[in-house]
Amino acid sequence: MDRDEYLERLGATTDESADLFEHFEQRSFDGRTYHVLSDARHGLERGTVIVEDADAVVRGYPSIPRLLVLEPGVQSFFEDHETVVVEEKLDGFNVRLADIGEPLAFTRSGYVCPYTTARARKLLSLEAFFDEYPEQVLCAELIGPETPYTATDYEGVDTHDFRVFGVRDRESGDPLSVADRRAICETYDFNQPRLFGRAPPESAAELVRDTIAELDAAGREGVVMKSETGDAMVKYTTEAQHHGELAYAFSLPFDHGRDFVFSRLIREAFQAAEFDEDEDRLQARAHDLGESILVPMVEAIQDVDDGETIGHRHTVRGDVGSIDALFDHLHDQSMTLEIEADRREDGQRVVEFVKVAESSRDRITYYLEGGTRTE
Amino acid sequence: MDRDEYLERLGATTDESADLFEHFEQRSFDGRTYHVLSDARHGLERGTVIVEDADAVVRGYPSIPRLLVLEPGVQSFFEDHETVVVEEKLDGFNVRLADIGEPLAFTRSGYVCPYTTARARKLLSLEAFFDEYPEQVLCAELIGPETPYTATDYEGVDTHDFRVFGVRDRESGDPLSVADRRAICETYDFNQPRLFGRAPPESAAELVRDTIAELDAAGREGVVMKSETGDAMVKYTTEAQHHGELAYAFSLPFDHGRDFVFSRLIREAFQAAEFDEDEDRLQARAHDLGESILVPMVEAIQDVDDGETIGHRHTVRGDVGSIDALFDHLHDQSMTLEIEADRREDGQRVVEFVKVAESSRDRITYYLEGGTRTE
Repeated sequence: MDRDEYLERLGATTDESADLFEHFEQRSFDGRTYHVLSDARHGLERGTVIVEDADAVVRGYPSIPRLLVLEPGVQSFFEDHETVVVEEKLDGFNVRLADIGEPLAFTRSGYVCPYTTARARKLLSLEAFFDEYPEQVLCAELIGPETPYTATDYEGVDTHDFRVFGVRDRESGDPLSVADRRAICETYDFNQPRLFGRAPPESAAELVRDTIAELDAAGREGVVMKSETGDAMVKYTTEAQHHGELAYAFSLPFDHGRDFVFSRLIREAFQAAEFDEDEDRLQARAHDLGESILVPMVEAIQDVDDGETIGHRHTVRGDVGSIDALFDHLHDQSMTLEIEADRREDGQRVVEFVKVAESSRDRITYYLEGGTRTE
Repeated sequence: MDRDEYLERLGATTDESADLFEHFEQRSFDGRTYHVLSDARHGLERGTVIVEDADAVVRGYPSIPRLLVLEPGVQSFFEDHETVVVEEKLDGFNVRLADIGEPLAFTRSGYVCPYTTARARKLLSLEAFFDEYPEQVLCAELIGPETPYTATDYEGVDTHDFRVFGVRDRESGDPLSVADRRAICETYDFNQPRLFGRAPPESAAELVRDTIAELDAAGREGVVMKSETGDAMVKYTTEAQHHGELAYAFSLPFDHGRDFVFSRLIREAFQAAEFDEDEDRLQARAHDLGESILVPMVEAIQDVDDGETIGHRHTVRGDVGSIDALFDHLHDQSMTLEIEADRREDGQRVVEFVKVAESSRDRITYYLEGGTRTE
C-alpha cells in the first residue's frame, strides 16, 4: 500500500504516514484485505477504511456532539445565517453502505457486517443507486425489533428495515445537503428518518422542544439537528431514551461501562433543570429514573440466582446464507451465544438467540456466593 | 534511611528495597521529614509512614472489604469457630493517632492533619495512653457536624468528637482483640462505636440484618463485622447511606468519580434483591434512589445558573492556632476555599467555609452556556 498516497487522499493532520498507519488494523472479509482505523486519529474518524485492492477509502462516520441545554445551546452551536433542520434520531445500528466492487455494510468501528450487507442488498436498490453515485456512501440505520444489534420497535416495521440519514462522499466524507439527500432517497425509495421542520437558529430550540415532547410521549429516542448543508450536526435526546438506556445498561450491570451510566445521568439532570418547571414533574422524573436503574438490576440478580441466562435477546430473520454469515461474524467477535429457537418461516430462517453477558453473570454469581468487594 | 532495615521491619512482600521505596513520597510536617506510601504495594497498606528521625513506622489502616449479600456472605467470610462482633460504622474522618515523639494524627493517605492532631490532643487523654502503650496506634474517627471533612450529625455530638474503633501495633499493624480494645478505651474514657452484639458466623447475618434495619431507620451508615481477635473485618451499609452518598456525589457531579456512583448503585441492587421482598418496597427504594441522584444535581445546576458557589460546606471550631494550621493544610492541598463566616465564640474561633467544587462549577457553566458533549 502506498501510504503516502493514502495519507494525502485522506487529508490527515499529520505529515508522517507512519504516525497514522500504526493505528490501522488489518482485517479481512470474504478473502479481501482491508485496513481500519480503530480510533479517531489525526483528524480522521474512527472506522475509516482503506480497501487496497479496490483503491478505495471509506471515511468513518463522524461522532455527533450532544447538547445538554437547548437554550442557548442551539443558537450558539449554529451560525446565525444557517437553517437548522430537525430530523428524528433513531435507535438502530449505524452502517455505511459503500460500493467497493460490491456493496458492503461497514459498522461504526469499520467491520464489515455480513448480515447487514445481505439485508441491505435485499431491501435497498443499491445497484441503481451506486450506478449513479459510485463515489458516495449511504449512511443508514438498521432498525426494528428483529436485528442482531438493537430491538427497538418502530411503527410499520414488523421485522427490520433501513433508514437512510446521510449521503456522503466516500473519500472526503463531505455530506450532501439535507434537501439533496432527501430528494435522492425519494428517487430510490429509501426510507428516511422523519423530518420535523426547519428553523433559523434563534427559533430552532422551540421547534426541538416541541418535537422532543412529542417523541418522548411516544417513547422515541430524540433528534439530530443539522445545518441545511449537512456540515454541522448536533443531537439531543428524550427522557424516555435516557431511562431506556439506563434500564438496558443496568439489566447487565457489569457489562456496560461506568461511563455509560454517568453520561446518561448528566443528560437527565440538565434536561430536568431546563424543562421540569415544577417539583412534581421533577419528582416523577426522579422516580422513573430510579426504577430504570434499580428494577432491571434486581431482576438480573434474581435471574442469575434462579440459574437463568442473562444477556441481550435478539431475533434475526433472513435467507440461510446471511444468517450463517451473521453467526460466523458474531463468533469471530468472541461473543458467547445461546440459541433459543431456530426455525423456518415463509422460506426464511428465523433465529432467536441471547448474547450471553458473561461479566454480569460471573460477577453477580460471585457476590451471591458471598464474595466481597474492595473499593 | 537504611532502606533494607525498614524493608525487613515492614515485612513487605518484596526482597528489593528499591521496588518498594520508589513508591514512598517524602513529605514534611512542622519541620520534620517523613516518607509515605501513597498506594498499597507489596503487602503494605496505603498511607504507611516512616518517620526517620523517630526511627518509627506507622502502618496504614487496612482497606475493609464489603459484603453485598449477607446470606451467605457473613458465614463464608468468617471461619466457623470465630465469634463475629458487630459494631457501628461511622461516617467520619479516619485517622491513626501515633506517638512519634509527640502525638500526631495521620490520615488514611498518610498526611499529618494539624487540625485533627490538635483536636485529638485536646479531647483525648493521649499522654496517659501513650505512656502505657507507646508502640500502639489509636484508630479513630473524627465525627460530628463541625469538622473540616464530614458533617454528619450524631446524637450527643454538638460540634465534633472522636470514636476509637481500633488499637493496633504501630509497626506490624496487628490489632488488639475487640474485648481488649473496648476495655482499654473505657479505661482512658475514649468513646467508641456502638457494639450491637456478638454471634457465631451462622447466626451473625440475622444480627446484622436487624442492626441494619435499626440503623437505616435512624439514617446511620452501617456496620463493621469483626472477628473477636480483630484480624478479620468486613463491612455492610444501609440504604440511607447509599442514598446519602449518591446525593453527596451528585450535588457536585463533576467532582466525584464515576466509580463512586457505580459502586453505590451496585450495593443498592444487591441489598434490594436480598431484602426487598415485595414490589412496593422495591419501588419505594427506587424512587428514593432516583431522587438522591437527580434532585441534588438539578439543584447544583440551578445554583450555578444563579451565580452561587457550589461545594461542600463545613464549620470548624477550635483554638486560633489549630484553625490557622488547618487552613494552611487545606491550602497546601490546592483546595479553593471560600470563607463564609469567621467569628469568636467562648474563646474559640469558629469558621464556616466552602470547599469550592471547581470542576462541577466549570463544567456546569460550560454546558449552561451551550457547550456540547462528545462521548
